Amino acid sequence: MLGSETNTNEILKGLNISLLRNINVKFLLFGDKKVISKNIKKYKELQSAVNIVDCKTFISMDDKPSEILKIKTSSSMHQAINSVKNKVSDAVLSFGNTGALMSLSLLNIKTLSEIKRPAIASIWPNLKGESIVLDLGANTKLSSRYLIDNAILGSSLASILFKIDKPTVGILNVGKEDIKGSEEIRIASDQLKRLNDSDAIKYIGYIEGNDISIGKTNVVVTDGFTGNIALKTAEGTAKLFQSHLKDAFKSSLISRLGYFLASIQMRSVKERLDPRVHNCGIFMGLNSLVIKCHGQSEYRGVSYAADIMFSLLANQVDQKIKKYILKIQDKIAV
Amino acid sequence: MLGSETNTNEILKGLNISLLRNINVKFLLFGDKKVISKNIKKYKELQSAVNIVDCKTFISMDDKPSEILKIKTSSSMHQAINSVKNKVSDAVLSFGNTGALMSLSLLNIKTLSEIKRPAIASIWPNLKGESIVLDLGANTKLSSRYLIDNAILGSSLASILFKIDKPTVGILNVGKEDIKGSEEIRIASDQLKRLNDSDAIKYIGYIEGNDISIGKTNVVVTDGFTGNIALKTAEGTAKLFQSHLKDAFKSSLISRLGYFLASIQMRSVKERLDPRVHNCGIFMGLNSLVIKCHGQSEYRGVSYAADIMFSLLANQVDQKIKKYILKIQDKIAV
Repeated sequence: MLGSETNTNEILKGLNISLLRNINVKFLLFGDKKVISKNIKKYKELQSAVNIVDCKTFISMDDKPSEILKIKTSSSMHQAINSVKNKVSDAVLSFGNTGALMSLSLLNIKTLSEIKRPAIASIWPNLKGESIVLDLGANTKLSSRYLIDNAILGSSLASILFKIDKPTVGILNVGKEDIKGSEEIRIASDQLKRLNDSDAIKYIGYIEGNDISIGKTNVVVTDGFTGNIALKTAEGTAKLFQSHLKDAFKSSLISRLGYFLASIQMRSVKERLDPRVHNCGIFMGLNSLVIKCHGQSEYRGVSYAADIMFSLLANQVDQKIKKYILKIQDKIAV
Repeated sequence: MLGSETNTNEILKGLNISLLRNINVKFLLFGDKKVISKNIKKYKELQSAVNIVDCKTFISMDDKPSEILKIKTSSSMHQAINSVKNKVSDAVLSFGNTGALMSLSLLNIKTLSEIKRPAIASIWPNLKGESIVLDLGANTKLSSRYLIDNAILGSSLASILFKIDKPTVGILNVGKEDIKGSEEIRIASDQLKRLNDSDAIKYIGYIEGNDISIGKTNVVVTDGFTGNIALKTAEGTAKLFQSHLKDAFKSSLISRLGYFLASIQMRSVKERLDPRVHNCGIFMGLNSLVIKCHGQSEYRGVSYAADIMFSLLANQVDQKIKKYILKIQDKIAV
């Protein structure tokens, strides 16, 4: 689903790349038909795998909830969500307003019956590879039950994306000791320890902020407030680092030459840690899959997100979550 | 104050450097006299500005609160805190257990009468220079009053260290809109907006995680849970970046040469962002100044922390805080 502020060509380029890696998929593109038709000509494979649904209204990044829910009901976002609701499509990939997308998803797609609230999950690069961090902002309220739900949702996601039978799970806290953190965190931790016996969750205990980048666990569980702050702080730190590095390399002729010689490797580092590649948010716990990409995503970010979507669909992530829940539902007491 | 797990030589080297920049200061060193005496010989200036208090007991990083408060009462940390309590010294610089240091400080030095709870502040590098972030873990409970106290403490600190008349203050939140965040955050924000009129605080509203590195405000106010997670996540991200960069530069002969040519600039970036230099925690809101450095600090981190301590003492940070409070105390309603 394309919004009014998205870069159509980058999105089409990204989808085309992903299509070559994931045969037999079809796209329904919700957006301005004229703009899409003009840009899609370059991508022959994509052109034959696409149906365009012409949309004239779009939810903007600044639209208020009242406008989103009542006025712009024929927007590209509404139509895309409805196509999933009506089983015309299997999943939504959106480049629009995150808050609006979550509201419309909750209203129309609804959560899985056993999950109290959906969570936004993201894939973070770390020293060992990647990990799943959730929630990144769907629920800013801290609740033991949400944390446990996040452990289930994150484990399902990690087991599929990282091809691990039992991913390790940690709760983000300000120390490793049992007494650390709020009561909600301690209750969730106690419950998850008990779930270890159920052969479903592999909970290893509390982890700290620096453990995310170390890759101490496959899944990092937190509330949406803390997760959102952590994600944006990490993005800011990465940008600060890049900016200083750029200045440093520009500061003399010799350092420019140095940069030139090392530039291939530098680019590979940038790409491995680039938030533009890693910045999709996976809405977990809904009856259908919804993935949100940054409105200004580059084609690499788009193809990465589309690959994730196809992998989760092919591996029936919903069934995976239900299996987890089946194993533990009589053991959750919060 | 030196613990059992500290690197004595690095500390002495750092103090010596700071001494050359801050004449007329004297040090009382609480630690193992034999070890200190052996190491201090290299630092002639420091030697003549130091009195060593021989300590045989030390609080370790793993000591439990019961041991700290009841058993090890003659530890180097106890003696250092008592020397401030008894006005023998003006401030404490510690390299020990943060939790123990905070407990002993609260018990013996106590908070300023108008401040409800102390906070740990730190200086973060950003695109424009540096900012003060607090709290980083003294209070993990979120309370409107603590956030307001943190705004006062952070403004005092920033005005002295950055030589700004009225530092800008932001509250860390998950969005810029008024409706974002918990009730405690919203109450604190409303109160701080009103304090703008009192000509004391320059509150600009909510900021997000990435705004810390951008340097949007001089002071970033948050609760100790969120601040601790943000700090450690940023440290982890910086380490991840450095590690990838190191690998990249090692990966071929040409990139090694590139690194060699750019190495001076690379070192300067590393130093500007190095947590070993920036990682001191300033305990704010107590009757005397207490600064905590990492146990494994390098001499640069030690001299940096000592410089901050001398600057805050010379500029009477306590009086500054009291002035802020005087201006606003009848306007705080939480």
